[in-house]
Amino acid sequence: MSAFLRFTPLVKTLPVTVPFVGPEAIERNRGLSVKARIGANESGFGPAPSVIEAMGAAAGETWKYADPENFTLKQALAAHLGCRAENIAIGEGIDSLLGQIVRLVIEPGMPVVSSLGAYPTFNFHVVGHGGRLVTVPYESDQENLAALLDCVRRENAPLVYFANPDNPMGSWWDAGSIIDFARALPETCLLILDEAYCETGPAGAMPDLPSLIDQPNVIRTRTFSKAYGLAGSRVGYAISTPANAQAFDKIRNHFGMNRVGVAAALAALADQAYLAAVVERIKASRERIAAIAAANGLQALPSATNFVAIDCGRDGTYARAIVNGLMEHGVFIRMPGVAPLNRCIRISTGPNPDMALLEEALPQVLKALG
Amino acid sequence: MSAFLRFTPLVKTLPVTVPFVGPEAIERNRGLSVKARIGANESGFGPAPSVIEAMGAAAGETWKYADPENFTLKQALAAHLGCRAENIAIGEGIDSLLGQIVRLVIEPGMPVVSSLGAYPTFNFHVVGHGGRLVTVPYESDQENLAALLDCVRRENAPLVYFANPDNPMGSWWDAGSIIDFARALPETCLLILDEAYCETGPAGAMPDLPSLIDQPNVIRTRTFSKAYGLAGSRVGYAISTPANAQAFDKIRNHFGMNRVGVAAALAALADQAYLAAVVERIKASRERIAAIAAANGLQALPSATNFVAIDCGRDGTYARAIVNGLMEHGVFIRMPGVAPLNRCIRISTGPNPDMALLEEALPQVLKALG
Repeated sequence: MSAFLRFTPLVKTLPVTVPFVGPEAIERNRGLSVKARIGANESGFGPAPSVIEAMGAAAGETWKYADPENFTLKQALAAHLGCRAENIAIGEGIDSLLGQIVRLVIEPGMPVVSSLGAYPTFNFHVVGHGGRLVTVPYESDQENLAALLDCVRRENAPLVYFANPDNPMGSWWDAGSIIDFARALPETCLLILDEAYCETGPAGAMPDLPSLIDQPNVIRTRTFSKAYGLAGSRVGYAISTPANAQAFDKIRNHFGMNRVGVAAALAALADQAYLAAVVERIKASRERIAAIAAANGLQALPSATNFVAIDCGRDGTYARAIVNGLMEHGVFIRMPGVAPLNRCIRISTGPNPDMALLEEALPQVLKALG
Repeated sequence: MSAFLRFTPLVKTLPVTVPFVGPEAIERNRGLSVKARIGANESGFGPAPSVIEAMGAAAGETWKYADPENFTLKQALAAHLGCRAENIAIGEGIDSLLGQIVRLVIEPGMPVVSSLGAYPTFNFHVVGHGGRLVTVPYESDQENLAALLDCVRRENAPLVYFANPDNPMGSWWDAGSIIDFARALPETCLLILDEAYCETGPAGAMPDLPSLIDQPNVIRTRTFSKAYGLAGSRVGYAISTPANAQAFDKIRNHFGMNRVGVAAALAALADQAYLAAVVERIKASRERIAAIAAANGLQALPSATNFVAIDCGRDGTYARAIVNGLMEHGVFIRMPGVAPLNRCIRISTGPNPDMALLEEALPQVLKALG
């Protein structure tokens, strides 16, 4: 059963790949059962009860396509953020928006700058459009803004990816440094400022919206997948100039949004009290993860996200053994993919039963590894 | 607020467009309210009660990403269709799959063959990837298989789109003609056989699965949006050789599927009794639409879909006036975009209250137009 003969030369060079292996696949492949799902930076705290209710109410309307213009959601986001609806583009999660941004900018062979070990799904899209990924090492587990800027200039790169707070390390920059970085970029380079974890960072880590919204070479991406607890709903958004927001309309799947997912996002946005409560639970869970790490002689890194990277003190092989060992106990976690970040494991925050499983399993795993 | 300077030359040429204006936008723009939503070939009969129930049960799990491998859905589809899970690719509706197929095959300037007046969203994707659309006129309101084949050969086209049953005309070919067409195509041309309306056609219109499944230049696309009543859930699938199905994994948004939407699709697939009942209601509704047309001196075309094209006997301006006039009465319908198809209006089947509104409004609209 061969493939069609005439896929593009680029497609023929692409691997058949999955940027992240899902926990369901791990369960199937290893015959294990996930008891604590704290590996994909989902929110085990779940969405608000008001969201579940709104989804139930919307289910009966699932025979209708969602509004292709996403009018109501854009209005609600604009009101929440303090910008105009015209500044916003909606997509099926940040992942979808990243793919669209790459397609808007990248032709085969063009350089794209990111950090070595940063978001694999972005890299997947870059490779998928024939871009040439140029990476800059992290510096002290932080993305290196100065080096990213140098690299952009050296390569005359049209696109740079930077996440604040960062995934997979959980580190962050202050708002001023990010604004300086964005303003120093040549206007020929588009900055993707990925703010998937913006709700969970400290005050002062996020540039306010007006500071960058008029800059045509900055697109900020955000999501309902993390603190809002709606990963499975697939609702993300981009914030930029109106002309950039409109550019998505040139290529996006206009009827791509799930109607119940949009209803969930609207309800989540309306329930800021629940969000605030979840953010507190995330902070408490970060502390508990750090305490569990410390009790086992490991060092948790500071985190502005809904996960904690833990330095296991050895190499990637050791960290991988911990990841695999925890899964034997039903504790699903992940880890960074490349050195030196891969001396760490990455554990998502979650409710107390998940933390208790982690607390119980980790010392056993470490002891078995010696 | 200008756009980023360095979007690709192709992107700069693309219009900011929406392939279809949604009914919500029509309501906003014209200050009207849709009472009978029978314009987008959604299913006003709705999904099965068992589906609504499954969605409610899945809502609480929406904090989890869907399985990126869509393992369970592929297994269920394979069992239902009588093929292997490896033959199937899942996407966010057929629209998303069409975009991916175009991306797999088309480089700027390449010819793509379709019928003049066929699915606009496919054309949107072709243009979006820089393809050169070459169209063949319909013949007697049917896509012209012989002319499509000639055009493919003349252009040495790598891609041809053909829908059976057809949208927007509702016409269809018999299975044998389609198999002959597929086998006559050069192996350098990929056939997209869009079967969005496969559940509502007559016996004998659909090639069985084995007849084309080993042919590397055929991809069949199907959806839960039409007869299954799940347009807002965004679940479509492609059936082809395993190697072609895998090709989607090279470029798709692996975490693009909505978890509740997948649960809905699984439940819908399991409830074939409901589907059968809906198909009967669709047939009855087609007959009622035809009767309403006849009572108003208009000619309904035969339909194998969940909609009916009605020949209004004049030009596109007249048909457009009917579409707009019906909307004044809250009856949302659509019409084909180009001549000579645009002498018709296109009305989706729907429950009796929708039909009653249509029955009441149409003579008033026609009378007002004279």
